Amino acid sequence: MIDNFYILTEWRNSFLIATATETATESEQGTFILAGVLLSLVVIYFASKLGGEVCSRINLPPVLGELVGGVLVGISAFHLLVFPESSAAEKSLIMSILQSTAGLPTEAVTSVFATQSEIISVLSELGVIILLFEIGLESDLKELIRVGPMAAIVATVGVVTPFVMGTLGLIYIFHTPAIPAVFAGAALTATSIGITAKVLAELGQLSSEEGQIIIGAAVLDDILGIVILAVVASLVKTGEIQVNNIIYLVISAAVFLIGSILLGRLISPLIVGLVNEMKTRGQVLLTGLVFAFILSYIATVINLEGILGAFAAGLILAETEKRKELEQQIIPVADFFVPIFFVCVGAKTDLSVLNPTVASNREGLIIATFLILVAILGKVITGFTVFGNPDLNKLAIGVGMIPRGEVGLVFAGVGSASGALSEATEAAIIVMVIATTFVAPPLLRLVFKETDTIAESVDKVQE
Amino acid sequence: MIDNFYILTEWRNSFLIATATETATESEQGTFILAGVLLSLVVIYFASKLGGEVCSRINLPPVLGELVGGVLVGISAFHLLVFPESSAAEKSLIMSILQSTAGLPTEAVTSVFATQSEIISVLSELGVIILLFEIGLESDLKELIRVGPMAAIVATVGVVTPFVMGTLGLIYIFHTPAIPAVFAGAALTATSIGITAKVLAELGQLSSEEGQIIIGAAVLDDILGIVILAVVASLVKTGEIQVNNIIYLVISAAVFLIGSILLGRLISPLIVGLVNEMKTRGQVLLTGLVFAFILSYIATVINLEGILGAFAAGLILAETEKRKELEQQIIPVADFFVPIFFVCVGAKTDLSVLNPTVASNREGLIIATFLILVAILGKVITGFTVFGNPDLNKLAIGVGMIPRGEVGLVFAGVGSASGALSEATEAAIIVMVIATTFVAPPLLRLVFKETDTIAESVDKVQE
Repeated sequence: MIDNFYILTEWRNSFLIATATETATESEQGTFILAGVLLSLVVIYFASKLGGEVCSRINLPPVLGELVGGVLVGISAFHLLVFPESSAAEKSLIMSILQSTAGLPTEAVTSVFATQSEIISVLSELGVIILLFEIGLESDLKELIRVGPMAAIVATVGVVTPFVMGTLGLIYIFHTPAIPAVFAGAALTATSIGITAKVLAELGQLSSEEGQIIIGAAVLDDILGIVILAVVASLVKTGEIQVNNIIYLVISAAVFLIGSILLGRLISPLIVGLVNEMKTRGQVLLTGLVFAFILSYIATVINLEGILGAFAAGLILAETEKRKELEQQIIPVADFFVPIFFVCVGAKTDLSVLNPTVASNREGLIIATFLILVAILGKVITGFTVFGNPDLNKLAIGVGMIPRGEVGLVFAGVGSASGALSEATEAAIIVMVIATTFVAPPLLRLVFKETDTIAESVDKVQE
Repeated sequence: MIDNFYILTEWRNSFLIATATETATESEQGTFILAGVLLSLVVIYFASKLGGEVCSRINLPPVLGELVGGVLVGISAFHLLVFPESSAAEKSLIMSILQSTAGLPTEAVTSVFATQSEIISVLSELGVIILLFEIGLESDLKELIRVGPMAAIVATVGVVTPFVMGTLGLIYIFHTPAIPAVFAGAALTATSIGITAKVLAELGQLSSEEGQIIIGAAVLDDILGIVILAVVASLVKTGEIQVNNIIYLVISAAVFLIGSILLGRLISPLIVGLVNEMKTRGQVLLTGLVFAFILSYIATVINLEGILGAFAAGLILAETEKRKELEQQIIPVADFFVPIFFVCVGAKTDLSVLNPTVASNREGLIIATFLILVAILGKVITGFTVFGNPDLNKLAIGVGMIPRGEVGLVFAGVGSASGALSEATEAAIIVMVIATTFVAPPLLRLVFKETDTIAESVDKVQE
């Protein structure tokens, strides 16, 4: 057993003076921690696959299934994956399993629970970092620059409208404190490029003019959303909203993102040259990850988000000849780490606050309803800001921006972990993300069908 | 920042009553832990690639470079990657970097250091588990059963001879206590199937009769080595050598390995059927890992090694139609985790005990010399136990079994982590592993050259 080093040293030291019983107990603590981590990973992967498979069968994005799977194994249902912040060690089913199968002694439960929960938390943090690195790799900086003012307008309106409507609505209608209101508003700005692109591809609309505008705006939205997330999360840390602070953060986010991309473009030929010289296994993957981890570290150190650095690293490396290879190799690593993040987000969501039979919960439900309305309206109107071509299906553009998907869940996860959100607001955001992502694929199919019918009749006339 | 959940709860709770300063400090602890883990990973990958690339250029196995790279960044040299067992938090260069770049406060250094070291340790434990899963996937159970008695004899003699010579020599010549002597003896039994197979392929001898015997024996040796590792590591836990204990462990290792393989073969069509039904990303990889983690957990619970379960899972899944796909997908995951293990083993090796100018160190050096002699002699004589074909290059068979490689390092790592080995014995084992793996490729080239010359003259005569 490669036991926990720290505990083993204590054990090694105590070995000389301790009785056999004491020795066994302390030595086994490391074994129990590893066993707990292994069991937690089994539970996480089981939940993510169960949820993902069910969702993919009913034509919904698998990532939603991972979240729902997390809810099932988490604090809201089976108590398999719970964290010290919301549950006592004794209520963790994994600790009970360790006690009954591995003989974990009662007095060690609390410390084993705390340590294995910390490890799962850091694995889930690495999960978001790797997810954003992957999203960066899949984004296209040149496409971003190439897409015209229309995509920029759609993206900007689609960020500003729901943010302002959501934040002000929460503050003035629901009397929510400023920080959670800003966080919920920020969560409304995201657009899931992954889900949108997938749905468009399924409808064969990826290369239509509407499709091009949606994809361009979603790419911009992705970056805007990450900057907003970084700004909001940093605001949470400082504890209040200060204009100086916002300006400093917006500037440092912009300087970091633009600076790292410009500098990265200068350095990336060197990185590619270095990788081409390397002969050992994993040279592309590990060089890419080292680059992502260094930028994540720098972003963290200057009070931005680690994920912003990982995203910038992905964007930079997406422009090199190593993109395809890196995209291929990051897939299994992301498959390993990313579900840990989504399942943990679901597991920590206490859906009991949404039980309408409890009077005090109605606040969360009303907030959720409000957020869903703002989320849909705030994106649908963006389509109508598009000028030029009057034949454009403006409704389709707006509807295409609706799904919040992964990016919205990242907001919920970050907000949840930072402690800025009340349970009601947190659950309301997740319900909003689920609702928008659920509603977008069928809605998009509906609004594009009209165009198809028109296109078909045009085709028939031309025949 | 997805902060550490546990710390954040405390922070969330304290938020209501604490001053702004206290809040910032506690909230940032999670950020520092993640930043420390990111920096440690950057250091680990840098060390593994630096060492690996240098070694691959001078025709040595890259894995040795990872170990040497680990020595460079570890306790013996630059103090970047150190662990609480052997170093104070203040001596960790990563903590110093966090203090100067990220503003880690002095009072938080010890707890951040302890937590991030624990996380790196568990990541390195996951590294061995994934490595052994991969080795299992690359092994061939049918080839194992097919290879005749010769491979079995070579494997058995090659395990028994160095084990007995090493253990008894240490006990009677060096007066080493029984447990470390058994551990060092066990480390002498390993054969690196990876290094051996690679060298044979380079020499074009993989399909020669000698090559077939070497590969067959190395596969058997791999399993014998793992059983021995499990037995020895379990013995370390109980603190003494008891015949009952050995019998129980040998039987439970055999029952677990044979039982899980027989049961696994029954279950594996169900697993393959399930995977074929699945539609979401990572279904092959995650199903394989869940299987490996469950078997690891069971092996851990019945007092065997987690790695034995991962190896059994690999062997079972290697027989299914998913082998190729799984082998492909496990590569990037192994590239991520496995270097953490090897670099950590190197980083924890305190080579200062091998400084010959210090009188008290000479013991380690003498042990190392003895182990290297036993390691080479114990394997070389195995070739001469082969009966039948008198034209066989018996010396080549023995030399082919010399490299200890990854498997030997796994022994060193497990021994080091379990605290069973004295620093001198631990360093001596690593020096032995390095020496045998260094010496095997050129030696093998030398002894096969003779055969080549003979074969060429035969060819010429036939012409």
